[in-house]
Amino acid sequence: MVWLGWMVFSPGLEHESEIPLYRQLYERIAAKIRSRELNAGERLPATRELAGQLGLNRTTVSAAYELLESAGLISGHVGRGSFVAGGAAPGGVDWGAMLDPSRTWRAPQTAIDPISFVMSRPSRDLFPLDDFRSACEAVLHRADLADILQLGSPSGYEPLRRYLLAQARAEGIASPEDDLLIANGCQQALDLIGRVLLRPGDTVAIEDPTYPGLKNLLGGMGVRLAGIPMGSDGLDPAQAARVLERDRPRFLVVTPNFQNPTGATLPLAARRALLDAARAAKVPVVENDPYGHLRYEGEEVPALKSLDDRGGTVLLRSFSKVSFPGLRVGWMLGPKPLIDRLRQAKETADLHTDQLSQAVLLEFAESGRLEQHLGRVRAAGAERLRALLDACARRLPAGTRFTRPQGGMNLWVRLTEPLDAESLLPRAQKQGVAYLPGRYFAVAQAEPGSLRLSFAGLPPDEIAAGIAVLGQIFSEELENAARAVEPASAMV
Amino acid sequence: MVWLGWMVFSPGLEHESEIPLYRQLYERIAAKIRSRELNAGERLPATRELAGQLGLNRTTVSAAYELLESAGLISGHVGRGSFVAGGAAPGGVDWGAMLDPSRTWRAPQTAIDPISFVMSRPSRDLFPLDDFRSACEAVLHRADLADILQLGSPSGYEPLRRYLLAQARAEGIASPEDDLLIANGCQQALDLIGRVLLRPGDTVAIEDPTYPGLKNLLGGMGVRLAGIPMGSDGLDPAQAARVLERDRPRFLVVTPNFQNPTGATLPLAARRALLDAARAAKVPVVENDPYGHLRYEGEEVPALKSLDDRGGTVLLRSFSKVSFPGLRVGWMLGPKPLIDRLRQAKETADLHTDQLSQAVLLEFAESGRLEQHLGRVRAAGAERLRALLDACARRLPAGTRFTRPQGGMNLWVRLTEPLDAESLLPRAQKQGVAYLPGRYFAVAQAEPGSLRLSFAGLPPDEIAAGIAVLGQIFSEELENAARAVEPASAMV
Repeated sequence: MVWLGWMVFSPGLEHESEIPLYRQLYERIAAKIRSRELNAGERLPATRELAGQLGLNRTTVSAAYELLESAGLISGHVGRGSFVAGGAAPGGVDWGAMLDPSRTWRAPQTAIDPISFVMSRPSRDLFPLDDFRSACEAVLHRADLADILQLGSPSGYEPLRRYLLAQARAEGIASPEDDLLIANGCQQALDLIGRVLLRPGDTVAIEDPTYPGLKNLLGGMGVRLAGIPMGSDGLDPAQAARVLERDRPRFLVVTPNFQNPTGATLPLAARRALLDAARAAKVPVVENDPYGHLRYEGEEVPALKSLDDRGGTVLLRSFSKVSFPGLRVGWMLGPKPLIDRLRQAKETADLHTDQLSQAVLLEFAESGRLEQHLGRVRAAGAERLRALLDACARRLPAGTRFTRPQGGMNLWVRLTEPLDAESLLPRAQKQGVAYLPGRYFAVAQAEPGSLRLSFAGLPPDEIAAGIAVLGQIFSEELENAARAVEPASAMV
Repeated sequence: MVWLGWMVFSPGLEHESEIPLYRQLYERIAAKIRSRELNAGERLPATRELAGQLGLNRTTVSAAYELLESAGLISGHVGRGSFVAGGAAPGGVDWGAMLDPSRTWRAPQTAIDPISFVMSRPSRDLFPLDDFRSACEAVLHRADLADILQLGSPSGYEPLRRYLLAQARAEGIASPEDDLLIANGCQQALDLIGRVLLRPGDTVAIEDPTYPGLKNLLGGMGVRLAGIPMGSDGLDPAQAARVLERDRPRFLVVTPNFQNPTGATLPLAARRALLDAARAAKVPVVENDPYGHLRYEGEEVPALKSLDDRGGTVLLRSFSKVSFPGLRVGWMLGPKPLIDRLRQAKETADLHTDQLSQAVLLEFAESGRLEQHLGRVRAAGAERLRALLDACARRLPAGTRFTRPQGGMNLWVRLTEPLDAESLLPRAQKQGVAYLPGRYFAVAQAEPGSLRLSFAGLPPDEIAAGIAVLGQIFSEELENAARAVEPASAMV
């Protein structure tokens, strides 16, 4: 095992260095791969094993492996371990040479952490399994079951499409010039919009910070991202107008309700001003609204789509965040010429969205079960949000700033200087708590002190316990930093 | 109604012209749109209405509208009619200017034809609905139901992924260096491969003829298609070798079993020769095998994937053609570095494949119901294929060539000159029979006499009746053509 050779590295890691251990470890392994001391296809030791050999915490090794994977140097596989990337059998295809280095940002695997604020997804414990079973049963006894199982339309399962369009019309958000197309959640909706409207080198205006799924998607299409800074009320329309005017992006993506990661909601006046700016610059608006139905307090604000009478907005919604994310069903509502082209792109991408789930979700919605479930989810969400806001106010060190969302799943924290959310994460994980550091969300420049707390999946007592742990770590680190500075101050 | 103005066109259509009426009508309407006599957003009359006004067959008007839609000049919508494309509300976004003209080929809508050989899909009547219900019920009572409904892994539902990988290992087609990734059917698998490996301007080698889904997909990515002509035994490896050597494509897509549209199967020796050629040119092979399990006669031929010991092949398979196409679940088996990158592309595209359908299909397969269903589907397919071959031999005019598939869903016909399959289609549809003309499948140059017959969805008696109609139309047209030539011949 070449990996026994690792022991010689151990003295090389500087435990007192400013550079975190996981980054040092990353650099050592990366150097070995680049110098071909480690060959393509070679298996790395398990994180537990290497941690034991080097006397390191396992999370440190995991963090190093994550970085190696982000850099495309190794590729990990659940249950099989991690392998040095690239290479080919003799005489075969050199996949490493064929595949460009990855440009995607992957969130660290933190599912093992007992209290994880990492995933922006609904609580598994709130899934109404009996209601879901009943909806399935009803579908299994539909007269059109064979049609559901047969090849379908790229537009979506027609009864669901009609239902969603009728709902949108009843809500006043669909004009007669609009059409509706079903896709595999908002992620595919955004992907299809990108495929239809973007060419490499184009610019797209997005909120800064935004979520990794959108950054990866647009980055993978080779477009330039023009970030519009987020405030506590979402993006500032005046700044947005300047970006639209200056960068002439192909389109603007905005999440007006409970934005991910900040949780901010754009007020009505700002929505109107943003639409005016978009209209003046002739820039289409993509209204990404997966969280809109998860309002826990305050008044609902009209959708940009309903305020735009010029046909420049496409609205994306989804069942994923409000019901069952494992069923991939979302939709786009927008001007007919755009939806027509998106339908062709959808057919090319994967023919159509799975029809069993479309039929089950239609039944779940039409039967009133979705609305009942939403009632319970909103009540639980309100309780969790209160618990989080309360814990943040009581436990995080003085000077810490955090947003006050009115719904959704996410809250954004800005630690005081010189705290670095990413380098403190391994300490939090050691105590069983995880979050996502700000750099995963940054468009222009990361704020080292920022981090996202996703609270929808945790009951109030775990939220309180998790924030207590984080508050202690952050406070200790602040005290250490102050102590480190004191002697120096005393000398002047 | 500006459309009353259509009456003035009627005399302009030349009923005796060589140019089919639907093409003449297409040109007239296209000219009106291009000259802005018809404005963006304007509604066209219903096909029935226009056909009545102009004294034309409704299928002629439908064919003209299809062409207008393919050209991006109009956009149709079920239940709402067809509209002139492009345009924008004053001061709004000009979607027509933002959207490039479509490059996709859309098959004509022929679902209304009583005997339709148009769709390559399984028979709805053979769906084992009770077995499907049982598989669903079992899933609804699984202990991991909540996990199925929660956000999942881009790799696919892990129990299904493990099952498929174990099966592939048992079959000897998966090497230890391989990994498996689940996607929404073969169409998305091909789309992801294209996204990961292709840049605009690249060349891809494909079979000629091939099916519209693949042509549209690659065409939409801006790549050049290098067609390798298909013979009765699939593509000729020597010709393939020349194309690979000359065009250095990024990869080669081959459907070795019951190819769509020809029905041809690549013999073992040709598979080996093809792999040698691919290896020599260092070109990866994408083995597209949705029909492999639908063999009705003859011996199974080993997969290219199992013959390739150099890791240059990725195999695509799917549940769609062998079970329920409305459930979109297929998979890719290939070298780990490629699958790793495809997993990232999958996550960017739509996070993951729908988990309810994955769980149901796993249960359907693991319980043995899939194998039972396959037995019935193979028996029915064999009967339908025999009926089709028999009817073609007895009913089509002498000199007509057609392939003799050993499985799958498609058979390829080449009519004798001067027959044109596309211009004869409206006559066939008038008598209630439809097929897809060769031009939808052509890569380099269309053979006007070619057409595809998809037989899996039709019972034997309808197959016989449909071919009898086609045989009569083709024979009559041949006689007319011969008669038209006779006087001229008599003059020399």
